[in-house]
Amino acid sequence: MALAMDIAGLHDFMQQAFQQVADDFRIDRLDETGLTVRMMTAERHLRPGGTISGPSMFALADVSVYFAILSRIGPVALAVTTNCSIDFMRKPKAGVDLLAETRILKLGRSLAVGDVLIRSEGVSSPVARAALTYAIPPS
Amino acid sequence: MALAMDIAGLHDFMQQAFQQVADDFRIDRLDETGLTVRMMTAERHLRPGGTISGPSMFALADVSVYFAILSRIGPVALAVTTNCSIDFMRKPKAGVDLLAETRILKLGRSLAVGDVLIRSEGVSSPVARAALTYAIPPS
Amino acid sequence: MALAMDIAGLHDFMQQAFQQVADDFRIDRLDETGLTVRMMTAERHLRPGGTISGPSMFALADVSVYFAILSRIGPVALAVTTNCSIDFMRKPKAGVDLLAETRILKLGRSLAVGDVLIRSEGVSSPVARAALTYAIPPS
Amino acid sequence: MALAMDIAGLHDFMQQAFQQVADDFRIDRLDETGLTVRMMTAERHLRPGGTISGPSMFALADVSVYFAILSRIGPVALAVTTNCSIDFMRKPKAGVDLLAETRILKLGRSLAVGDVLIRSEGVSSPVARAALTYAIPPS
Repeated sequence: MALAMDIAGLHDFMQQAFQQVADDFRIDRLDETGLTVRMMTAERHLRPGGTISGPSMFALADVSVYFAILSRIGPVALAVTTNCSIDFMRKPKAGVDLLAETRILKLGRSLAVGDVLIRSEGVSSPVARAALTYAIPPS
Repeated sequence: MALAMDIAGLHDFMQQAFQQVADDFRIDRLDETGLTVRMMTAERHLRPGGTISGPSMFALADVSVYFAILSRIGPVALAVTTNCSIDFMRKPKAGVDLLAETRILKLGRSLAVGDVLIRSEGVSSPVARAALTYAIPPS
Repeated sequence: MALAMDIAGLHDFMQQAFQQVADDFRIDRLDETGLTVRMMTAERHLRPGGTISGPSMFALADVSVYFAILSRIGPVALAVTTNCSIDFMRKPKAGVDLLAETRILKLGRSLAVGDVLIRSEGVSSPVARAALTYAIPPS
Repeated sequence: MALAMDIAGLHDFMQQAFQQVADDFRIDRLDETGLTVRMMTAERHLRPGGTISGPSMFALADVSVYFAILSRIGPVALAVTTNCSIDFMRKPKAGVDLLAETRILKLGRSLAVGDVLIRSEGVSSPVARAALTYAIPPS
């Protein structure tokens, strides 16, 4: 399976289409099996006590599957999330980034499904897992 | 079933414990069947095109079930989300608030489950639905 | 919203298309807001100790949303489940049927979403909740 | 991490505790990273057209995570499923078994989370994915 976009192309697309969130995320790895997205944790992602908020982890899972889909089909800004299930399993480690290992499990004409395993950088036990479905508009 | 906190008490608790998000949410209704939480949509919740972002809707669902639990058991800051499933079904209406109708389906000693139906204010068809599980720490 | 099929029509369709499961389920109520499906619990649905198995409750949720969709769009045998989230919240009461209150939350051209609240007959606290997405084939 | 039960021990436990379903499932692989469970598909698992029913795939995911938990903590018959999310992504291949690759992502004192990727034997694209949470009773 050939890739339609590389890391630089995905970063450029994010800057243009989702500037508000572009500073939060960076793609560390991209190959034909999937990609790894880094969330550069900052004050705005934290809850009292220093833990990363649930919505921030949801955002990381969401953007990770979105990028994985774009890497396969090219810049389709209108793909939209239709479903997400997420389990929060451990408290993230304070002061380090989150890394989201992401796989595409299905890439159909109208629906794509991906899953994500989120870890604190340098820690092997996962913080969260998620699966997301995207609806892909007719081309 | 008696309520442990009223709307004013929940608003005060939110201001103290989650000041960052307290400006986003307000409880419109609270009774023994559940509550309705309003998300006062602002620029920071939007995606290009004016639609409300997925993470913002996740945050609304999350805080709504949290408040519903607190209204029953009192201010337990350490209750944490362990699972969420969410379906995004329609594009929210631009320029209006979101309203989250929330029910507690189970309130056990260690786990609570609630569900949420999110609508754009003034529109009957729902925008999203979600179910969340919270782990409640031993008292 | 007019209904495309009534209870007798849905029961007939089930007998023809899903004979294996037709004996397990019966529609108790159908109106424009949704329907109630009864699972007539039998030995084959039980786990040791007399509790109803998870797969049996999944089957009840699945068939309930399927019937709710058919009641709106008519007998489309090829609609398929694409996603389900389910929470098992309490042990069902032994020796009574299960009742699944079912609503359609979205009925689009290609995707439909419904949710289900399952109770033991005569008990108000729910046993399980579920949400399901069906893909509807192009007509 | 040492295993508390091996394949023979798990098969014996299944025969004693869940005799009704013991004929459906067999563990093909078990190591410290997880296990693979085979569903020996039979007439009773099929829908019209020869496809495997959703409840049968749910049962496979459910039993796979259950065995993965037991392999770590020993024969705790009373562990119960509290949540499952499942995506059905492709039609299973007719006439072959299903294989469920299963990982434990969290094994806490009271909650365990596992995920499952289900394939038709001999086919690389997955048929379904699932994540399940089990509540573990106090010992």
